[in-house]
Amino acid sequence: MDRARLRQLLEQVERGELDVAAALERLSALPFHASASATLDTHRELRTGFPEAVYAAGKTPQQVAEAAAALACAHDRVLITRAAPDHYAAVRALLPAAAYRQPARCIIWRNGAATAPSGSVCVIAAGTSDLPVADEAAVTAEMLDAAVVRVTDVGVAGLHRLLSRLEALRKADALVVCAGMEGALPSAVGGLVSAPVIAVPTSVGYGASYGGLAALLAMLNSCAPGVAVVNIDNGFGAGLIAARIARAAAR
Amino acid sequence: MDRARLRQLLEQVERGELDVAAALERLSALPFHASASATLDTHRELRTGFPEAVYAAGKTPQQVAEAAAALACAHDRVLITRAAPDHYAAVRALLPAAAYRQPARCIIWRNGAATAPSGSVCVIAAGTSDLPVADEAAVTAEMLDAAVVRVTDVGVAGLHRLLSRLEALRKADALVVCAGMEGALPSAVGGLVSAPVIAVPTSVGYGASYGGLAALLAMLNSCAPGVAVVNIDNGFGAGLIAARIARAAAR
Amino acid sequence: MDRARLRQLLEQVERGELDVAAALERLSALPFHASASATLDTHRELRTGFPEAVYAAGKTPQQVAEAAAALACAHDRVLITRAAPDHYAAVRALLPAAAYRQPARCIIWRNGAATAPSGSVCVIAAGTSDLPVADEAAVTAEMLDAAVVRVTDVGVAGLHRLLSRLEALRKADALVVCAGMEGALPSAVGGLVSAPVIAVPTSVGYGASYGGLAALLAMLNSCAPGVAVVNIDNGFGAGLIAARIARAAAR
Amino acid sequence: MDRARLRQLLEQVERGELDVAAALERLSALPFHASASATLDTHRELRTGFPEAVYAAGKTPQQVAEAAAALACAHDRVLITRAAPDHYAAVRALLPAAAYRQPARCIIWRNGAATAPSGSVCVIAAGTSDLPVADEAAVTAEMLDAAVVRVTDVGVAGLHRLLSRLEALRKADALVVCAGMEGALPSAVGGLVSAPVIAVPTSVGYGASYGGLAALLAMLNSCAPGVAVVNIDNGFGAGLIAARIARAAAR
Amino acid sequence: MDRARLRQLLEQVERGELDVAAALERLSALPFHASASATLDTHRELRTGFPEAVYAAGKTPQQVAEAAAALACAHDRVLITRAAPDHYAAVRALLPAAAYRQPARCIIWRNGAATAPSGSVCVIAAGTSDLPVADEAAVTAEMLDAAVVRVTDVGVAGLHRLLSRLEALRKADALVVCAGMEGALPSAVGGLVSAPVIAVPTSVGYGASYGGLAALLAMLNSCAPGVAVVNIDNGFGAGLIAARIARAAAR
Amino acid sequence: MDRARLRQLLEQVERGELDVAAALERLSALPFHASASATLDTHRELRTGFPEAVYAAGKTPQQVAEAAAALACAHDRVLITRAAPDHYAAVRALLPAAAYRQPARCIIWRNGAATAPSGSVCVIAAGTSDLPVADEAAVTAEMLDAAVVRVTDVGVAGLHRLLSRLEALRKADALVVCAGMEGALPSAVGGLVSAPVIAVPTSVGYGASYGGLAALLAMLNSCAPGVAVVNIDNGFGAGLIAARIARAAAR
Amino acid sequence: MDRARLRQLLEQVERGELDVAAALERLSALPFHASASATLDTHRELRTGFPEAVYAAGKTPQQVAEAAAALACAHDRVLITRAAPDHYAAVRALLPAAAYRQPARCIIWRNGAATAPSGSVCVIAAGTSDLPVADEAAVTAEMLDAAVVRVTDVGVAGLHRLLSRLEALRKADALVVCAGMEGALPSAVGGLVSAPVIAVPTSVGYGASYGGLAALLAMLNSCAPGVAVVNIDNGFGAGLIAARIARAAAR
Amino acid sequence: MDRARLRQLLEQVERGELDVAAALERLSALPFHASASATLDTHRELRTGFPEAVYAAGKTPQQVAEAAAALACAHDRVLITRAAPDHYAAVRALLPAAAYRQPARCIIWRNGAATAPSGSVCVIAAGTSDLPVADEAAVTAEMLDAAVVRVTDVGVAGLHRLLSRLEALRKADALVVCAGMEGALPSAVGGLVSAPVIAVPTSVGYGASYGGLAALLAMLNSCAPGVAVVNIDNGFGAGLIAARIARAAAR
Repeated sequence: MDRARLRQLLEQVERGELDVAAALERLSALPFHASASATLDTHRELRTGFPEAVYAAGKTPQQVAEAAAALACAHDRVLITRAAPDHYAAVRALLPAAAYRQPARCIIWRNGAATAPSGSVCVIAAGTSDLPVADEAAVTAEMLDAAVVRVTDVGVAGLHRLLSRLEALRKADALVVCAGMEGALPSAVGGLVSAPVIAVPTSVGYGASYGGLAALLAMLNSCAPGVAVVNIDNGFGAGLIAARIARAAAR
Repeated sequence: MDRARLRQLLEQVERGELDVAAALERLSALPFHASASATLDTHRELRTGFPEAVYAAGKTPQQVAEAAAALACAHDRVLITRAAPDHYAAVRALLPAAAYRQPARCIIWRNGAATAPSGSVCVIAAGTSDLPVADEAAVTAEMLDAAVVRVTDVGVAGLHRLLSRLEALRKADALVVCAGMEGALPSAVGGLVSAPVIAVPTSVGYGASYGGLAALLAMLNSCAPGVAVVNIDNGFGAGLIAARIARAAAR
Repeated sequence: MDRARLRQLLEQVERGELDVAAALERLSALPFHASASATLDTHRELRTGFPEAVYAAGKTPQQVAEAAAALACAHDRVLITRAAPDHYAAVRALLPAAAYRQPARCIIWRNGAATAPSGSVCVIAAGTSDLPVADEAAVTAEMLDAAVVRVTDVGVAGLHRLLSRLEALRKADALVVCAGMEGALPSAVGGLVSAPVIAVPTSVGYGASYGGLAALLAMLNSCAPGVAVVNIDNGFGAGLIAARIARAAAR
Repeated sequence: MDRARLRQLLEQVERGELDVAAALERLSALPFHASASATLDTHRELRTGFPEAVYAAGKTPQQVAEAAAALACAHDRVLITRAAPDHYAAVRALLPAAAYRQPARCIIWRNGAATAPSGSVCVIAAGTSDLPVADEAAVTAEMLDAAVVRVTDVGVAGLHRLLSRLEALRKADALVVCAGMEGALPSAVGGLVSAPVIAVPTSVGYGASYGGLAALLAMLNSCAPGVAVVNIDNGFGAGLIAARIARAAAR
Repeated sequence: MDRARLRQLLEQVERGELDVAAALERLSALPFHASASATLDTHRELRTGFPEAVYAAGKTPQQVAEAAAALACAHDRVLITRAAPDHYAAVRALLPAAAYRQPARCIIWRNGAATAPSGSVCVIAAGTSDLPVADEAAVTAEMLDAAVVRVTDVGVAGLHRLLSRLEALRKADALVVCAGMEGALPSAVGGLVSAPVIAVPTSVGYGASYGGLAALLAMLNSCAPGVAVVNIDNGFGAGLIAARIARAAAR
Repeated sequence: MDRARLRQLLEQVERGELDVAAALERLSALPFHASASATLDTHRELRTGFPEAVYAAGKTPQQVAEAAAALACAHDRVLITRAAPDHYAAVRALLPAAAYRQPARCIIWRNGAATAPSGSVCVIAAGTSDLPVADEAAVTAEMLDAAVVRVTDVGVAGLHRLLSRLEALRKADALVVCAGMEGALPSAVGGLVSAPVIAVPTSVGYGASYGGLAALLAMLNSCAPGVAVVNIDNGFGAGLIAARIARAAAR
Repeated sequence: MDRARLRQLLEQVERGELDVAAALERLSALPFHASASATLDTHRELRTGFPEAVYAAGKTPQQVAEAAAALACAHDRVLITRAAPDHYAAVRALLPAAAYRQPARCIIWRNGAATAPSGSVCVIAAGTSDLPVADEAAVTAEMLDAAVVRVTDVGVAGLHRLLSRLEALRKADALVVCAGMEGALPSAVGGLVSAPVIAVPTSVGYGASYGGLAALLAMLNSCAPGVAVVNIDNGFGAGLIAARIARAAAR
Repeated sequence: MDRARLRQLLEQVERGELDVAAALERLSALPFHASASATLDTHRELRTGFPEAVYAAGKTPQQVAEAAAALACAHDRVLITRAAPDHYAAVRALLPAAAYRQPARCIIWRNGAATAPSGSVCVIAAGTSDLPVADEAAVTAEMLDAAVVRVTDVGVAGLHRLLSRLEALRKADALVVCAGMEGALPSAVGGLVSAPVIAVPTSVGYGASYGGLAALLAMLNSCAPGVAVVNIDNGFGAGLIAARIARAAAR
């Protein structure tokens, strides 16, 4: 139940359109909404500004679809990450308006038109292999009403590619930088901009990249201040925090 | 090198005013110098919003004092982190207005009065042993004109202490959460607020805390979205990014 | 070899009935055989309070079924962990009364009715993905005659969910807390109860969770006293030790 | 916030006594404050059965003494771990009845006579180098009113030493087993008793013992069920949980 | 666009065979060449002496074939590493002159005859399992015009095999040494020659080889000076740097 | 190059029969060729007492069969480890007398009758899951003419099982002890015997066993002297060294 | 009490020189001999062929001297490892015949003349920095009556040095090979001899040697069969097992 | 004995100025030159092109001075790395011409004037804290007759600083790039030049830099081809290999 609907309910009570008993009934179910597989936290949107997203990896299509439908009853938008095509098929059966976004591997659903953009986020991918993670960040930020600019294939081994996009970088309220292998890009970007940089190590690489560990350590040790890091391949987390920063900047 | 200059060069070759070898030399450096001269500047403050801070650990008092004096010529404020008392003595000899902040281990110097606060940052320390790191974050954020609220000793093993400070947490534009040992506090905080949370693992602990590694991994795996992480004990980095977020929110 | 037998041996040597070489041979094995024959027994159940459980992963259905049948001859209950459906099919062919418990992935068999509950165990899962491990703990504890209460989806990112179950937590004689990702839940629970908490890190997570390592380290560094830890995903071990604690408390 | 108060709030809105904005504010904090005020208390002793112990390492004598004096005002016993002789001197100046226990490195203080023992704990040290950790566990358990039996120098490389103490092991309500190097002792003990075993890896060893990591991993992988593990060198934690188990068994 | 073609273009302008507008058009597209999946850096050959190679692992045959065709438009040679047979089939459909080299798993394509060898590289494999990596290094070096000598199965456990090839080792301008397991071969080779040695740890081994980590650490700690190391299994990188060294030596 | 040859070379220079350049060339290769030609041989069996075994994992049946046939031409016995059934089929087609030993996963071939046993080896497996590794050790030792006694399922969690086999342990000239999980068995065995103990960590376990790392570290830190360790799952290496020890003892 | 003394006691009983009561008294104290700081295992020599050595590191001179004196009552030789000069001073006060061996850092004491050598051990040090560990191995082996040959500074980066000592290597019944950094020497030695090789990684090195981890991993992955490994810097353990092998070979 | 002196000796024999017996005497001592603490490999210069350097860390001033003097007898230059001032004092007493170079911590000694430069090396330090390592590389390269250009303080967080030195970078025959923290600089440099890049991770950093591990992994995973890596802080090794490359390029 989002803040708007809660306000609406209270106003109905104030205006006498809803009696106390009915309001009580609806409110007492508020923090918890039972589902088959979990107690979903529908109160989270009110508290932290975004409904729980569904992490589809390791869940069956049926489980994902039911969780999505439950969330759609209480919220005006739903985001499902790490979704495979069969997850999408099951979700679409229950929520026909759901869309499948690639290469982000995300399913998105909105009730009504998108809101006007609120702040801008620049999402950067060092190489094409980093695109699924970067796109997950971009789709997530868009679901939180950020205007997103995507910049791709600007790794540090070809600095001119990065420098040629300097204007786009400097316009953003927040930046998400996704890189695998040596994970050097956030340091280079952090030295060029004054907005916060959220770095996402990706598992792109082989041998001593250790599934993203090399990039993770590099980003944590960035010599450029203004860089914070999220978990390996966590495009969702980076997109969410970047969108929150951008929204605050746009207020 | 913009299109106009490129045309000019080609015309010189066409007219025989520039031989092929020289033209070749200038062209092979093309993608870098062009961008560099056009868009890069040598003033980091202008570019990234803050002058370089001096990291005093491992430097002699003399080296630190000289670096501080040099920065004070070009900027209106100077921040020195991880400073010992003898660093402070040396700095004060050159910059009498410098102050030593404890437990942050920071030396600060300002030319003129402080600016009006621009955005608010809440800096949280899980336990008293985390205070030096938390205070470094707080002093850094204050140097970037944030209004800082400090909250201490609210570890997850006593949730009522954290919940009793809920109001302070929810008012901040950005939060810095410092914790060692199991590093669980950012997850708890991240579930209570909608502003971005910057988590700082500290090296507080013993045995299998591995100098902050346990806390670092916990924070990277936080189940609460909206949490990004900086290096172990990096209060400076966390304070800087939090102040940038707060400043944007306050615009 | 007790004193009486030792005297007997020396007297035999004195009388010339035993030569020195033979006596020497018997004496060099002395400290072990003596203890072994006097105090050790071959029945683990008698000695440690529970028959060996069968760990089915990596074994063929035939191997598991034969082991189960052998145990069923000597004991009144049999527990098989990490069992797949084909393991169950093979076991049921030999032990028709066997039941398959999900999501615990356990096969259980009892000869006769269950005993009256002896002590209470609260088994907590941070999220739905932790349920298989938590249910393995619960089934194990029930096989040792504990009354088990299951609490699910109470991760630290939504503290109100945990606090709403406080009464259930405080009633238990022992608690098992299963969590992956940042593994923060045992610290929060440990601060709320006075009964022993057995923490189980699960391999739930991705990236820098390193298959449960992040949660394991967090739990070992818990700032809440009263928390001890078992191996990653070891629901069986946690359930067993919790049931032993509960049984003692119920005596 | 219970149902009654929620009804009251809605009725105030209905009557126009409370405007929507104020009601909204109170409702959004609802899930926490309700639980917090109803069920949480500020007295850890009441809640978890033991006052906070003071961890002296890294604190000044003055800081430790002040913390001890403050705790002594509110509780009938105080425990300070990892204390050096100068910590003790400072504490004794404020609390003359305080005693210093070696090799445990603990300072203890009691107001009044000791309580009658409540349950029994057997604390085992594999070798003499493990004694400081084992003694810390023993002193902690005694401070929680357990009757403690100490068994020393019974490493697995001399099994007869362990087997000769079998009776002492089997009489305990809970056991604490401290071992460094290969950390094998808890497995051997766990196969001999039916009471819970709390294993404490110690940092005793060199080379590939990695400061207790080898012992920690061995204990987590113990093939004997009924073994749970605490942090490296965490004698305090092991003693506390063992005493809690013993107390429950003695009720 | 390689240096030769660039010179050719400038000479055409100089001779008046190409007007400035047409030259400008061709040059302004120079640093970037759009493709479906990536902005390929066709300027890289000019800047760093070799066109980007295509890393086929994890790409579809179609993606690899398109990237190869795009590169073939701008360069006189193309190298594709970690290619499977289906990658080759797709590439050959677009570039019929492409060849598939085994055990290197490389696809190569040249426009015109090979250049005369420029410097010599000796590529050494400790055992037969290291051959795919060693051959990748050899094929790469050959693509950069090095004359390559291959030496195989000369592990340190049979020193006479290595010593019998001493002459070949000493004649090379640069050496590539590939070894898994204990990774000792580069140290032995480094003590025998005065040319630079590029060591490649391979993932050959099991157990505590940790996918090449043991060999990597051994090579980094080589007691023979003159040894530098590349990533695990990175035959391409080693071949490229060795060929650059050899080319310089042959000038 | 011995003194005589060196004198001869110098005399040739003195007589002008050898010019300085040629002499210089021969001298610079001196320290290696001299030793190599004088003392090294190309027959490993002669030099190290056993022909190369074939490690079948990762090789095709055809490759293994060809290697086996080649070795069978030069030696009177052939050992192939980590062999799958299809490896065996291919080998038997070329060497009809070859046998497949399970659970060792070894193919063995002998030309003529087995030699009389030469020394005794006791191979111990902690649990049934360790049997493939232990049997590989046993088969290897038998191929080197050791008399092998197998002892199984004697883990430290049931010490009476180990103690009941004490006689078998003490009779052996060398012992191989295979254990996964906490790897404690070699320490217990090492405290009971005076013959050398070769410890083999196995990859048996889950979670924090880290594929045998926990057992490996435990064995390296064994508090019982007389224990040396081989790689994880390296039954072959342990069997070979144990057989060498036993053979020496039997001379 | 060693085997010789035990035999002597039994013979006295047989001859009637000692009555049963007195013999019983002496024998019943046999497996344990109380000391202030430890229950020393004086029966160990009988059981495992060598008395417990004293590890001096971390013990006070007084503790070491008392332990040495206690062992000297029951055995004809005493070995103290990792001893500093002040340890030696304290021991010599109680045992004037004790000698201090450098660079081994060992104190040795013998009652009576040394026994005739029993088997030969070759102890090899890769470099001079490995000498303390190698000498500890040599002194230990000598204390177990092995004839020891020391070979030094024969690292793999100068193979001629190793090959020039081939004869010494091949004469030994067992070899101990100590090396830090890349730890390659045991592989080279293992390919040259047929006797067992005990490899000792040393903590010599810097950077990515990680205190001997690089050498340890290299040795565990040795491609030469016949190599087993002990803990980092564990010269004592290697010397002991090598002497046991040599003694068996010399029988 | 370097190649020049060897040639000189042979020429003396050829001219009859030196008789065979005397020459034999000098040559037979050739590969080994006894010293108190080590068999120094004076033949190494002939074989690998550079005399052994002395690594002073952990050696006494006396040991270092003696080693230096012994090397100075056989070679025309001596290099001592990681030397403290007291090492220098001891060396200068024996070799008055020795010089102490800072911040490299190197002692150098030459017999006669320096040779004409042979090839050029560019040594780059990311930050001022990397200077000791970079200077060690520079001094080493100079001792091998390379012309060295030093570039400092060009970290990736300020790309314009790096780009402004492009000309210096492109002129070098080989480059050494030293960086700590995130170790990103070699990737940026590798994308700008065609000469080989030797990357040196430094231990500069804190927290999750893990003593240079973060930089090491980043460099091994560099997305720029043409980059090879040496051990952490190994300026000597990097300088040596770079000088070898440069010398070959200058031939």
